[in-house]
Amino acid sequence: MTQNIYDDETFFAGYSQLPRSVHGLDGAPEWPVLRSMLPELAGKDVLDLGCGFGWFCRFAAGEGARSVLGIDLSEKMLERARRETREAGVVYERADLESFVPQPAAFDLIYSSLAFHYLADLAGLFGRVHAALKPGGSLVCSVEHPLLTAPARQEWLADADGRATWPVNGYLDEGERVSNWLAEGVVKRHRTIATYVDLLLAAGFSLTKLVEWAPSPEQVAAEPGWAKERERPFFLLMAASRN
Amino acid sequence: MTQNIYDDETFFAGYSQLPRSVHGLDGAPEWPVLRSMLPELAGKDVLDLGCGFGWFCRFAAGEGARSVLGIDLSEKMLERARRETREAGVVYERADLESFVPQPAAFDLIYSSLAFHYLADLAGLFGRVHAALKPGGSLVCSVEHPLLTAPARQEWLADADGRATWPVNGYLDEGERVSNWLAEGVVKRHRTIATYVDLLLAAGFSLTKLVEWAPSPEQVAAEPGWAKERERPFFLLMAASRN
Repeated sequence: MTQNIYDDETFFAGYSQLPRSVHGLDGAPEWPVLRSMLPELAGKDVLDLGCGFGWFCRFAAGEGARSVLGIDLSEKMLERARRETREAGVVYERADLESFVPQPAAFDLIYSSLAFHYLADLAGLFGRVHAALKPGGSLVCSVEHPLLTAPARQEWLADADGRATWPVNGYLDEGERVSNWLAEGVVKRHRTIATYVDLLLAAGFSLTKLVEWAPSPEQVAAEPGWAKERERPFFLLMAASRN
Repeated sequence: MTQNIYDDETFFAGYSQLPRSVHGLDGAPEWPVLRSMLPELAGKDVLDLGCGFGWFCRFAAGEGARSVLGIDLSEKMLERARRETREAGVVYERADLESFVPQPAAFDLIYSSLAFHYLADLAGLFGRVHAALKPGGSLVCSVEHPLLTAPARQEWLADADGRATWPVNGYLDEGERVSNWLAEGVVKRHRTIATYVDLLLAAGFSLTKLVEWAPSPEQVAAEPGWAKERERPFFLLMAASRN
């Protein structure tokens, strides 16, 4: 079973204060790019894996999706999602993505934001996700970029010129990484970019878009503190389709 | 026009002493993986972009390829390739990949080892390569991994625990990188992994395999000096097909 860190009191309190928790999709700087990777949503059946507070489910409903199913492991997040969702056609369900089996050939879009890097058996989930798409349907998802999950110490270094430099080691050694982000002992799974892509291909997907996301120069101009975030990518965004 | 660094006396002398120049494909540690990405070659028409000393052309001919065309910009390399090639069906031609237009729908396999990271207009070449493949044909290629081409200083650092750590900065800033590898002023072009993939997709290819290559644990056991080469990938290997 996946670690249910989002129901940890300390983690939940910290996570609830992040801009993306307070402001929703508009508080997530990668959202404009992720949004550009989405198909038209009107009339579509949508599944959100790791829906959290339900921001994307509500967005999809607002865009005219016919049905939206949001899945999460966290009772605290689902409780808030249900409380704040007024849009019609949105249903939330508690499940562990390690074992969740969505209905076959039922969805036009399966979406997932920053959830897959918690999972041990991504091959299994990708297989079930592929089967759950209608032919022509698509998967659009984001994960922490492997350059972030790889290193033993996620601490900026300086090169000989004093330039901010991201430390990479352990990149080829996939598997568990324990970090102290918002709470102690948060367990993530490091995979290389090639592994993410090959898991998609092995599940039968065609890859349609790959983005190594970092703030745009315009976003850095608006938030000068983000300047070094352009030294390396922060999120990996992927779109793939079922033929 | 691409910098013809391989015809620089100093560079050529240094390059000629690399294990891959002395021992051919067996001196290239990534070859077993790259070879596993190749289609069956017997009876096929093969194009090698950046053929160098002709090792792969000779291999393809030895595997029973019907025709093999090797292209390179370096007169010194082509001279040695022609001198050492005894295999039938192999032809070498001098051309700059920035402008070379292969015959449309003429090849079953287009191969390229460690050449594309020298090119400014890869979108243009990928378009011509796609057109030069027969339907169902494939491109198999390698480039320096973007983690190597990115940083301003390609010098190992140590993290706070003293672990060998590869420095990443400038990853999002694509374009020219000047390094002093074998000779001074060698010009390469840095692109992100996402850009390589998206250039392939934009040219009409389906991506079929992506490998972030580093020596295997078995290779490191045989060459203990390579241990830190597993901290980050060294080459990016790609296979793509024309539908």
